[in-house]
Amino acid sequence: MSLPPLHAVIMAGGSGTRFWPASRADRPKQFLPISGTRPMIAETYARLEGLVGPERVLVVTAEGQADLVRECLPAVPPENLLTEPEARNTAACIALAAFEIERRDPRGVQVILAADHVIEPVEDFRATLRAAARAAADGAHLITLGVRPDHPATGYGYLKAGEQVDLIEGHPVYEVSRFVEKPDRSTAESFLRSGRFYWNSGMFVWRTDAILAAFRHLMPAVHAGLRDARTRAAVAAAYRGLESVPVDKGIMERSSNVRMLPIDYRWNDVGSWSALAGVLAPDAAGNWPALSEGARLIVEDAEGCVAYAEGPELIALLGVRDLVVVRSGNATLVAPRDRAEEVKRLVERLRAEGPEFV
Amino acid sequence: MSLPPLHAVIMAGGSGTRFWPASRADRPKQFLPISGTRPMIAETYARLEGLVGPERVLVVTAEGQADLVRECLPAVPPENLLTEPEARNTAACIALAAFEIERRDPRGVQVILAADHVIEPVEDFRATLRAAARAAADGAHLITLGVRPDHPATGYGYLKAGEQVDLIEGHPVYEVSRFVEKPDRSTAESFLRSGRFYWNSGMFVWRTDAILAAFRHLMPAVHAGLRDARTRAAVAAAYRGLESVPVDKGIMERSSNVRMLPIDYRWNDVGSWSALAGVLAPDAAGNWPALSEGARLIVEDAEGCVAYAEGPELIALLGVRDLVVVRSGNATLVAPRDRAEEVKRLVERLRAEGPEFV
Repeated sequence: MSLPPLHAVIMAGGSGTRFWPASRADRPKQFLPISGTRPMIAETYARLEGLVGPERVLVVTAEGQADLVRECLPAVPPENLLTEPEARNTAACIALAAFEIERRDPRGVQVILAADHVIEPVEDFRATLRAAARAAADGAHLITLGVRPDHPATGYGYLKAGEQVDLIEGHPVYEVSRFVEKPDRSTAESFLRSGRFYWNSGMFVWRTDAILAAFRHLMPAVHAGLRDARTRAAVAAAYRGLESVPVDKGIMERSSNVRMLPIDYRWNDVGSWSALAGVLAPDAAGNWPALSEGARLIVEDAEGCVAYAEGPELIALLGVRDLVVVRSGNATLVAPRDRAEEVKRLVERLRAEGPEFV
Repeated sequence: MSLPPLHAVIMAGGSGTRFWPASRADRPKQFLPISGTRPMIAETYARLEGLVGPERVLVVTAEGQADLVRECLPAVPPENLLTEPEARNTAACIALAAFEIERRDPRGVQVILAADHVIEPVEDFRATLRAAARAAADGAHLITLGVRPDHPATGYGYLKAGEQVDLIEGHPVYEVSRFVEKPDRSTAESFLRSGRFYWNSGMFVWRTDAILAAFRHLMPAVHAGLRDARTRAAVAAAYRGLESVPVDKGIMERSSNVRMLPIDYRWNDVGSWSALAGVLAPDAAGNWPALSEGARLIVEDAEGCVAYAEGPELIALLGVRDLVVVRSGNATLVAPRDRAEEVKRLVERLRAEGPEFV
C-alpha cells in the first residue's frame, strides 16, 4: 500500500537563550549551524527529503523570525510560513498548523518536528517516519516518537511503553501506559534498566482530523480560538487569550488513543553548549570544534573542550580542560562544560545590564 | 644646582608575541593599551612630562612601526624617530640613539626607557630620574636603575648593590658589585632575604659622552659601525654587520664605573598576560578586567581571571577560575593564568599554520 503524501510541520519558534552568545534575540538556535555547517532548521528540512515535498512543509515561527526562515528554507513557499504573534508553547502552534493543513487536505497525515534536533542516521529516521505515518493513516491514533535512552538523562520527560500492538515494516508500535515528568537521577537509572521507558522526543505523527478532534475534546478553547483565525490579525487576537501549554500535557497525556514508535538511533535535542559533546565528533586532541565559515581552532595541551566560532575567527586553547568556549558576534563565553546551562542566568542579567550583547 | 635639560630615549622595538592575540606582528605590545586606556608607549612618554620636552625625546623603533609611534606620540618631532632596519638587541639601539644625541648635545644627559613598562607612582619615578641625572651629570658613571624586589622573581636578572657611595635628594647611590642572570627559585629567595639584590630594570641614565666612551672601549665594532651612520641606507648597512647583544652584557657588566639607584615603588615589565594581575586593580569579584573602548566583562561565579578585550566586545565568564581570556582582532585566547607565557608556542605554530591570525 503506498503512503499518501505527507505533510510536515516544523516548529521553529524557540528563543534559545541556552546557546548565547551564538543565539541572540534576533537569531535563536534553530537558525545557527550549531551541529553542522547548515542552520539546524535547514538540517531538519533536509531530513524530509524524499518524504515530504517543499509545498507540503509548513513552518511555524515567531513573527520576527520569518525572514530568517525564508533565508534558510528558500524552497518552502511563502504561504507555508505561519507566524505566531507571541509564543504560546506547542499546543497552540500545533493547532494553528493543523487548521491550515485541514484547509488543504482535511485527512492528510502530518509529521510534527522541532527545528533544532539532531537525528542520525537520516535514513533510519525517514523509515521511522514512514512507519509512523502508516500507523497514523487510519486516523484512529496519535503517534508519538519515543527515544530509547542510552544514559539516565534527567533533562527529558519519559514515556512508558505498554503493550506492543503492531509491527510496521519492522517498527514495533506500542501503547503508551504512562507519561513521566523529568525524573531524578535514581529514577532515571531505574527507567534505563527497565528497558520500558523512552524519552519524550516532542515529535509526533497524526492525521489532521485526528489531532483536531483531540483539540476539540481536550482543549476546546484552543480549538474554538484558532478554527477560523485565517488572517494575521485574527491569529493575533486569538493568541492573546490562549493558554501556554505543551501539546504533551494538553493533549497526549490526556488522550486514550496514543501510540509510540521508538527511535533507537541517535537523537539529541541539543539543549545546551555541553550537549554538543554528544553530537559532534571529537577531533584528534579530544576537543569538539563547532566551527563555521572558515573559523579555526588551535590547541596546545587542551582537551575536552567545546569550541564554537563563526569565521574568520580563531579560538586558541592552551592548557585548559572541559571548557565551553564560544565566540560569536560581539561576545565571548567561557564556562566549564558541566555548567554551560547556567548561561541562561548571564543572559537574564544582560537583558538589563547590556542589552546590546543579547 | 639646576639640572641641565635631559634627553630621553624610548626603546620601542619589541615584537611582543607574549601578548598575542592582542599583540600582532604589526602591532606589538608597546602600542596596546595593555595596562590602561592609552598605549603603553604613550604612558611611557607621559611619565616624562615636566622632565623631558618632546623635542628631546628620541624613539627607536622598527621601520614597520614608525607610523604607530607617530600616531601614539604626535608631539614628538618626526626627526626624533630613529628606525632600525632589523632588531639587534639593546646595545645597537642605544648606540644609534647616543650618536644622534651627540650630534645635538655631546655632553647631554640621557635617560633610557623601555616603551612597555608599568611604573607607579609617576612622581616617585620622576624623582628617581632627577636624582639619577644628577648622579650622571659629571660624566664619570653609567647609572642603572635597580628595582627592589617584592617577591622572589625568577624571570629577571639581578644586580647586587655594593657600597653606598652617595645620597642625592634622598636617593641612595650604590656601586654595583655583581650582575646575575635569571636565578632559580631558591637563589631568588636568598636574594630577596639578603636585601642587597635588585632587579635589572633595563633602564639607564648617563651622559652621552660617557656611554659613547664605553662603546668605544667595550664594543668598538658597534661604535665604529654606527658613528657615521646618518642616513637610513648607512644605518641599514651598519646593522647588517652588528652583533645582537643586550647593553647589560655588552657594556654594563664589563664597565667599572656603573652605579645603581633603586626603584622602591611599583615597577613591572608586564612580560605576559599573567603579569597583568600584578599591574591592574582587581574588580569587586576578584578578576582583572583589561578593557578598552567600551569593552565589557560580565562574570557569574568566576574569579582570579585576567580578561582583555577591545570594545565593543563582551567577555562572559561563568564558573571559571584563574584563567586568562583575551579577545582581540580575529582571535580569542583561553589559558590558565600560570601558563599564559606558553602562548609563544601557539604563535610560533600559527606563523606556519595560520599566518592570518598572527
